[in-house]
Amino acid sequence: MENEFDWLKKVQPQKTPGHLIQGIGDDAALYQSEASFDEVATVDTMVEDVHFKKSTMSPTDIGYKALAINLSDIAAMGGKACYYLVSIAIPQSGWTEDEVVEIYAGMKELANRCGAVLIGGDTVSTNDRLVVTVTVIGRVETGRKLLRSNAKPGDIVFVTGPLGSSAAGLHLLLKGDKRLEAFEYEAVVRAHQRPEPQLDIGRVLAKSGFRVSLNDVSDGIASEAHEIAEASGVVIDLFEGDLPYHESLDDFPEQKWKWILSGGEDFQLLGTIARDEWDHVKGSVEGQGGEIYAIGEVKEGESSVYLHNENGIHSIDKSGYQHFG
Amino acid sequence: MENEFDWLKKVQPQKTPGHLIQGIGDDAALYQSEASFDEVATVDTMVEDVHFKKSTMSPTDIGYKALAINLSDIAAMGGKACYYLVSIAIPQSGWTEDEVVEIYAGMKELANRCGAVLIGGDTVSTNDRLVVTVTVIGRVETGRKLLRSNAKPGDIVFVTGPLGSSAAGLHLLLKGDKRLEAFEYEAVVRAHQRPEPQLDIGRVLAKSGFRVSLNDVSDGIASEAHEIAEASGVVIDLFEGDLPYHESLDDFPEQKWKWILSGGEDFQLLGTIARDEWDHVKGSVEGQGGEIYAIGEVKEGESSVYLHNENGIHSIDKSGYQHFG
Repeated sequence: MENEFDWLKKVQPQKTPGHLIQGIGDDAALYQSEASFDEVATVDTMVEDVHFKKSTMSPTDIGYKALAINLSDIAAMGGKACYYLVSIAIPQSGWTEDEVVEIYAGMKELANRCGAVLIGGDTVSTNDRLVVTVTVIGRVETGRKLLRSNAKPGDIVFVTGPLGSSAAGLHLLLKGDKRLEAFEYEAVVRAHQRPEPQLDIGRVLAKSGFRVSLNDVSDGIASEAHEIAEASGVVIDLFEGDLPYHESLDDFPEQKWKWILSGGEDFQLLGTIARDEWDHVKGSVEGQGGEIYAIGEVKEGESSVYLHNENGIHSIDKSGYQHFG
Repeated sequence: MENEFDWLKKVQPQKTPGHLIQGIGDDAALYQSEASFDEVATVDTMVEDVHFKKSTMSPTDIGYKALAINLSDIAAMGGKACYYLVSIAIPQSGWTEDEVVEIYAGMKELANRCGAVLIGGDTVSTNDRLVVTVTVIGRVETGRKLLRSNAKPGDIVFVTGPLGSSAAGLHLLLKGDKRLEAFEYEAVVRAHQRPEPQLDIGRVLAKSGFRVSLNDVSDGIASEAHEIAEASGVVIDLFEGDLPYHESLDDFPEQKWKWILSGGEDFQLLGTIARDEWDHVKGSVEGQGGEIYAIGEVKEGESSVYLHNENGIHSIDKSGYQHFG
């Protein structure tokens, strides 16, 4: 197997952006900061047979998703993506060199679309299963802080797209379900294998200049809503009838609400914004071809999350469990 | 086991530096850049039973070293350390929660000394052995580029401390050698378990304003010298008699030169600087209590590395193998 340097050369960008001084090829990457922007940084790890299986994800999917989950964190800060670093522990057996190159190719496909450039990494061997860790560095306009702690009573709660799709897709993949081939399930399978970080919507929210609380839906909307409620010290009311989901979830009536509330890995953005500013932001997002849905409201009170449906109002915990009351 | 958020709270710094806007606790960290500084970023991974063993490294040592090897890359760019992110894959068994906390404590011990602040991370579980990945973000004065490609004929080649110590220490640890207890071997064992990133010397070199080529000795001086020779298109002559090493290596006559030339993990800085500027830099480093040794010179010619000793001049390859001729 080639050395780290050779690996990285293969996936090195042809053209480096203006702010990058030294990318791959020295001890560390060197880049200029940007006037009137703050820096945003995040890291996430995916472990074989914990976060993905070779049977349900192709190598390019694995790379794509490993970068996507990090870009989603950047999106949740309203940032634009700039740079990424990849550390990969490659098993002594079970993975071909081509497969590892495909992992990087999957990242690059998404990175090119988002304007992120690979600037460094580490490739090591392991006697165990594959582990891939991606660090992403992004930027957001100085003074913009789309934090979880920004929610205030009276805010609209919004989400940027369907919930539960990833969980539905994983379910089909793990079962080897014959419906996998059907067109109507393509969207949910894709949501699991190639989640789309909502960077464009994050940028709209950051540029709006409005106070926005924001979180990405990695662990399910129940958990993320709790994080905002706790960080902001507010009550979040969610309206079941307004929660967006892909129509194919109706074919799984038993799992549907569990997936929607706590399936996780949807990588949509969940946030809150003042009611007066909602129409403007919704218009801007939809004007760019994006989706954004009002799904609830913020109230005063001890941190908690409630789900309103035709049966009444239910306190829900982080796992999405509904306490009927 | 606690969730990621709880983990990170335990090791969260009490006081955040001026430039950090949001550390642990949101989707990503947010920090200001600094006027007249460029950003430096690097990532490195350590895998249990590949890069360390529980029998030879305590949990605090593992954490210390995982951060140190990254800080060494920052040092090799002349940077100061600012922030670090830690991603850790924790085995289902074999590691206690206390041991994992100690890994973070080992990092923090070094980080506090170097002024680096933990700003984020990811904790995941694994069915295999422990994997720890550290990302460090540092800064260096705008326009300073202490790159491997900066060497020029006529330069002095220097190194910042003893070579081969880490390899000697590992040898003793793996053998369970009874000499481990002896005072005279403490330095080499410590060099393996707790390598010291040479950040202070990197800063002296960066602030000097001189043209400096620089590399950290992670893979052995033979390999690092080749990297400078190749990146700069020069010949590097090393003088065996000038290579610094800990006196205890004389007790291992068979391994001594292999360890010095290619033992690796010494995390000293290897570099080159114009002969006219050498005395000034040496004075500055030593004035701060640091060590720096002239060990060779740069010549014109096709990229290569030669070792001069009493038997003549030998071409050496990246692995330190001497081609007698």
